[in-house]
Amino acid sequence: MRQIFICEVGPRDGLQNAHHLMPTEAKKAWIASMAAAGIEEIEVGSFVPPKLIPAMADTAEIVAFAIGIPNLKVVALAPNVRGFERAVAAGAQKITFPVSASRAHSLANVRMTPEQMADEVRKCVELRGKEGPQIEAGVATAFGCTMQGEVPEDDVVRLAVMLAESGVDCVALADTVGYANPAQIRRLFKRVKAEIGDKLEAAHLHNTRGLGLANALAAYEEGVRHFDSSMGGLGGCPFAPGASGNVVTEDLVFMFESMGVRTGVDFEKLMAARKLLVAGIPDEPVYGHTPMAGLPKGFRAAA
Amino acid sequence: MRQIFICEVGPRDGLQNAHHLMPTEAKKAWIASMAAAGIEEIEVGSFVPPKLIPAMADTAEIVAFAIGIPNLKVVALAPNVRGFERAVAAGAQKITFPVSASRAHSLANVRMTPEQMADEVRKCVELRGKEGPQIEAGVATAFGCTMQGEVPEDDVVRLAVMLAESGVDCVALADTVGYANPAQIRRLFKRVKAEIGDKLEAAHLHNTRGLGLANALAAYEEGVRHFDSSMGGLGGCPFAPGASGNVVTEDLVFMFESMGVRTGVDFEKLMAARKLLVAGIPDEPVYGHTPMAGLPKGFRAAA
Repeated sequence: MRQIFICEVGPRDGLQNAHHLMPTEAKKAWIASMAAAGIEEIEVGSFVPPKLIPAMADTAEIVAFAIGIPNLKVVALAPNVRGFERAVAAGAQKITFPVSASRAHSLANVRMTPEQMADEVRKCVELRGKEGPQIEAGVATAFGCTMQGEVPEDDVVRLAVMLAESGVDCVALADTVGYANPAQIRRLFKRVKAEIGDKLEAAHLHNTRGLGLANALAAYEEGVRHFDSSMGGLGGCPFAPGASGNVVTEDLVFMFESMGVRTGVDFEKLMAARKLLVAGIPDEPVYGHTPMAGLPKGFRAAA
Repeated sequence: MRQIFICEVGPRDGLQNAHHLMPTEAKKAWIASMAAAGIEEIEVGSFVPPKLIPAMADTAEIVAFAIGIPNLKVVALAPNVRGFERAVAAGAQKITFPVSASRAHSLANVRMTPEQMADEVRKCVELRGKEGPQIEAGVATAFGCTMQGEVPEDDVVRLAVMLAESGVDCVALADTVGYANPAQIRRLFKRVKAEIGDKLEAAHLHNTRGLGLANALAAYEEGVRHFDSSMGGLGGCPFAPGASGNVVTEDLVFMFESMGVRTGVDFEKLMAARKLLVAGIPDEPVYGHTPMAGLPKGFRAAA
């Protein structure tokens, strides 16, 4: 039985920030190979206007394909009611909403204030009825914002409570721009958990300043068991100024498995999936330390 | 007052593993600039036979230069009595010995068994007298070995005790090949500390599999306050297979400062030193996430 749960967000958070497009068929092959490696949850795309983000234009087709894969929960991002309706129509099993704690980022990202966006999420919860998909609200820029700078922790806690009370199934805290540090991670997950308990679920971390794994460790030690990550740190590169890729799935799996924490993911099969990622978007930089260095001699995955 | 103490090991551990040579004058300028940034301890070189490691051939000249820098403790590595004598003659203020817990690595690295090497360290402690330099023993391959694979924790504890009893001033635990994980770091530092108390001092960590900062965090939380690190992760690169650079000084400083832990290092001046590193060895890959991404908007160093 797995002890932590990884949601691979590369096909959404990675590809939407990549400099190149991955063809639809390559996306399908990559997603299927990650599921075959034991990843049980994949955020496959985003229901945003295709004109805004062309890389996400095929999300409905990708969702339709992915829901046919056994043992996979198919997640899609929606920025509003319209996106939610499209995600439901496509068959997404979990729909995640980005709700920025930073007013500046919220206005730039979804053209709504945090409160308006929380209202939008509430409407979707009501629209869903009893048979609808799982709904997650991710508190974006929870640890700082490139526009606003510091984001007061009180704002994050207040927003998380508002979202939990609106009836979402789970709330995530997202370090959207890679500003978080381990002390802040501990403090904020503790505070939000004290308010909303088990509705607080995932840590969505970026590796922009190299602290992704240290932050994941701190979150794990605060009781977090759900982690978003991106294969190859897709969407950012340590050699690119301002790089903002997610924490690297391969390194995250290695860290937890080497600690004796079961991820349910087979590392060798993950490496096979990585080949499909590189084949699907060959000009995009991917990184990750463990894939380059290889597993330690005599390495044993968590038993 | 600084709360953690960074020993910059790039001029030794980094340059001895680099693919290119840094000219002596460039080394001097780089070392001086790091000291000016607030780094109070620098491992400037190694007294090994120049034929074996040409990059370290100028160590005596570098030590002689570095001891003239105010507020800097000048560290040199010695692999045996002969190296120790050369280090003392050059004026090194602290001399560090690599004592591998892995028999295979010890034989390959210093042509002695761990026990023979511990004896060699004991001889140096006796040779030193009361006026001599500080002596550190670093337990190398303490978390695993590329030759031997797993290194039993009992072997590490036994060796650390033997070294402490031989009269060294401090013992470090070194993840020489980047195999460590945070759970193992906690376990082993706790066990060794229970045996030798405050003689256990530094964590020497590599970032080979990207876990360098997570391991540093775990060590810090176990009470470790001395960290070795290397500017630019020199000596390894995430794009090179088997990369084995140290944990990146810049990212380590950023992590601790952002957590509110004072390092005594000025980040902007550290960036200036990084320019001298790149200028001194322009074809060598250097990395580090924070230098590429920049500090967060509104970032405040630890007060």
